[in-house]
Amino acid sequence: MWRQSEILLKDRSRGFHIVTSEIQAALNSMFADGQPSVGLCHLFLHHTSASLAINENADPDVRGDLERHFSVLAPENAPHYRHTLEGPDDMPAHIKSVLIGPELTVPLRKGKLVLGTWQGIYLCEHRDHGGRRTLTITVQGE
Amino acid sequence: MWRQSEILLKDRSRGFHIVTSEIQAALNSMFADGQPSVGLCHLFLHHTSASLAINENADPDVRGDLERHFSVLAPENAPHYRHTLEGPDDMPAHIKSVLIGPELTVPLRKGKLVLGTWQGIYLCEHRDHGGRRTLTITVQGE
Amino acid sequence: MWRQSEILLKDRSRGFHIVTSEIQAALNSMFADGQPSVGLCHLFLHHTSASLAINENADPDVRGDLERHFSVLAPENAPHYRHTLEGPDDMPAHIKSVLIGPELTVPLRKGKLVLGTWQGIYLCEHRDHGGRRTLTITVQGE
Repeated sequence: MWRQSEILLKDRSRGFHIVTSEIQAALNSMFADGQPSVGLCHLFLHHTSASLAINENADPDVRGDLERHFSVLAPENAPHYRHTLEGPDDMPAHIKSVLIGPELTVPLRKGKLVLGTWQGIYLCEHRDHGGRRTLTITVQGE
Repeated sequence: MWRQSEILLKDRSRGFHIVTSEIQAALNSMFADGQPSVGLCHLFLHHTSASLAINENADPDVRGDLERHFSVLAPENAPHYRHTLEGPDDMPAHIKSVLIGPELTVPLRKGKLVLGTWQGIYLCEHRDHGGRRTLTITVQGE
Repeated sequence: MWRQSEILLKDRSRGFHIVTSEIQAALNSMFADGQPSVGLCHLFLHHTSASLAINENADPDVRGDLERHFSVLAPENAPHYRHTLEGPDDMPAHIKSVLIGPELTVPLRKGKLVLGTWQGIYLCEHRDHGGRRTLTITVQGE
């Protein structure tokens, strides 16, 4: 049982955003005729300046601290950057995307994402104005 | 051929720990009736303050250096942290978990994890007292 | 439909290198008799001092900036390193490998890697003289 679907995530501001319910809704529509009882869901972002992560779904300060801290790890205007034509937020965005990664695999059980109590799926938007982001969801299971 | 199992890793101190043999033992019990000849093993940690990695399995100084260096990259008590109620080790643990990630896929061949000579699977415990950690193992193959 | 193959990537200098066409060529030879219409391609590097990433495939300055910036994040000769016997580039290479990771999953559609317009697959060589690198490619689909 294989399904693959490309979806557009809505436009978001720079920062770390929870998208778990958008992903689960896409899964539900991909399996309108019956969910796999066991499987894996693979998420793949088509971009080099955003990324996908899994972390705390409760206190929004965690997402704010992540944005602030990753902007310390990959600051704007570092003297060693040569790729600067696309704006000061661009090269830090590439670095953050390599650090965090554009893809994730999450287990499925009875059609639901298997996540810990405190886990949510994040879209990490590293550009000031990244626009909508394209995601390929590939699901397999039995 | 699909299998999914939830296991509890034992309580570990803050730091980087090799868990390859625990994972391989869980795989052996999941396939007591015959292993897949080719497959993939997906490991998913249900937590936001620990992570999974693959690195050097020999010199324990590598694991010590990783603990020391990640605690430089994500220090305690950074002035920009607002999520501080759960202790000074908590927000750094979330950052390390986003940097390293809570999930891994490892190839399987003849029922064994395909790892390079020097590779081991790490549980990276980022809390001072993280307790036991829950892991969902999903295996598929033929 | 499962396939698994071990390939050797050619020797590369320290830095970030695009290997998309090498991976696609390996996929083509693994499926000489017909590609899966939907699937997943898993890439697994057998090493602890190199890694796999996905990022910008156009401006080579991005790859240069990544090399320079990761060498700021994981510098040589940090005072807290104890694993120093294999040379000053060795412990930073382990750290970079944990930060970036040795494995990736990429969607497949009609036998082709599903990548965004600007995405390429990188071999990140963190040693000064890493030599050839072994990669296990596992593909499944239908």
